[in-house]
Amino acid sequence: MVISLAHLGPVGTNAETAALAYAHWLEKTQAKSCLLCPCPSIAQTLHSVAQGDTKKAVVPVENSTEGSVACTLDTLWKLDHLKIQQELVLPIIHALFSRGSSINGIKTVYSHPQALAQCQRWLQEHLPDIALIPTNSTAEALDKISLEPTAGAIAAPRAAKLYNVPILANHINDYPDNCTRFWVMTLDPTPTVSSRISLAFSVSENVPGSLMKPLQVFSERNINLSRIESRPTKRSLGEYLFYLDIEGNHEDPNIINALDALTHHTEIIKIYGSYPVLFLEETDIEQL
Amino acid sequence: MVISLAHLGPVGTNAETAALAYAHWLEKTQAKSCLLCPCPSIAQTLHSVAQGDTKKAVVPVENSTEGSVACTLDTLWKLDHLKIQQELVLPIIHALFSRGSSINGIKTVYSHPQALAQCQRWLQEHLPDIALIPTNSTAEALDKISLEPTAGAIAAPRAAKLYNVPILANHINDYPDNCTRFWVMTLDPTPTVSSRISLAFSVSENVPGSLMKPLQVFSERNINLSRIESRPTKRSLGEYLFYLDIEGNHEDPNIINALDALTHHTEIIKIYGSYPVLFLEETDIEQL
Repeated sequence: MVISLAHLGPVGTNAETAALAYAHWLEKTQAKSCLLCPCPSIAQTLHSVAQGDTKKAVVPVENSTEGSVACTLDTLWKLDHLKIQQELVLPIIHALFSRGSSINGIKTVYSHPQALAQCQRWLQEHLPDIALIPTNSTAEALDKISLEPTAGAIAAPRAAKLYNVPILANHINDYPDNCTRFWVMTLDPTPTVSSRISLAFSVSENVPGSLMKPLQVFSERNINLSRIESRPTKRSLGEYLFYLDIEGNHEDPNIINALDALTHHTEIIKIYGSYPVLFLEETDIEQL
Repeated sequence: MVISLAHLGPVGTNAETAALAYAHWLEKTQAKSCLLCPCPSIAQTLHSVAQGDTKKAVVPVENSTEGSVACTLDTLWKLDHLKIQQELVLPIIHALFSRGSSINGIKTVYSHPQALAQCQRWLQEHLPDIALIPTNSTAEALDKISLEPTAGAIAAPRAAKLYNVPILANHINDYPDNCTRFWVMTLDPTPTVSSRISLAFSVSENVPGSLMKPLQVFSERNINLSRIESRPTKRSLGEYLFYLDIEGNHEDPNIINALDALTHHTEIIKIYGSYPVLFLEETDIEQL
């Protein structure tokens, strides 16, 4: 059976790289093949699985330099039943592409705002006086420069062979350990050995300690939180949802007990699942 | 004495509206006049005050729909000595501008990514099949549409008279209570009656309860947190800084005691100040 796998398109984006890496890993470990289904937005990628149009979706959750991907968190809160099957941690490398012959000739650089933000120090140092133009994806940036020899695009090095554009400078991201967490989402996850649980909740009122009590549930049981993130409820300023990642798995009685206790201190709670984490290296990506 | 006031430019952006509103309020309540100094980025706006080139800066901190302004938080963490003088809460209204005659003729919409995100439901409903093109500011979007009758731009209604472009639809933001918090930053704040304190800290190690202990400092003293936000340290995935807003003022012995206790449970701590909050209405902005 071929597994349909939704991701943010078009070809050459980091989301496609993550989808390809997951497909490659499924083939290698479980002899299953995937059909990649590019979607125009992260929200549509997640809706495609929620509606049953595709079996799984790969979506970015958090970047080590720029933080959470707001659109993914906001869409997951609105959808029910979607669960995390697996996490992938992908190294994110940015390169400067151009049809022109040297960095000095560049007058404009196009890229996705996240990519521009992740290379801001390099750009400030090497191209301080140029125009930075945001695009909807790194792939769109590569399209833009095809007829402009004084324009550059920031994208993943993998795009060089896909778009046939030369790289003027590689590894231009400000932080060498720049990486992004991706979640593989599905309606019916297969049981796995898991190491992390992700959940989100709202609290019923904004009073002293309203967030402290949910956090105490974990600290009292010696359970480590690897992330806490707040997002606005969008109803009114100062009302938040909280996103937590906890270390452990759903079969541990200590965790079961904590999640049960948590319901007494929260309003709405959504458990996105208990899942393993797969760390990918630069060499894994070069093979794709 | 004229007070120099840095803000993200160019004219017509919401940051300029906030700066104008603050200048208007200073004139009315303290008979002081301001000179507005537009800057090309939020980081440069803050650096301009930190270096003493301008006296004050107005920067966006948090939007009720889209959450924290990452660039403001990240830049403040890197700068020392900048303090919050005042908070302004500005209603954010978005309108669709075009030189064309009807919504049906629109094929492309330009705007800042935050503005596109804040109107995504309206766009999905009224213009489902068009291209959405990100720009560096809402003002840049208005420049783009000057020669394209099938293009629209999303910007503040105030821009209509500044750019002489007609409004096709007003109040198109998905959430009617959409508003943004702005901070007025300075090196030497004048003492005021304050109602809120903002601070940021890092914790020394990622162990169970490392965030719980700092939060307990406040809940034990019955001090309410009105916001908690995490941002990556950018050093490695899973290491965070925390940004807290607490209700109260710096002269309250209970708060002084809590801030002192907090130093025992944090690594680096930065107190951005104790300040009053000024809520603006749509009618306040229409007068500017």
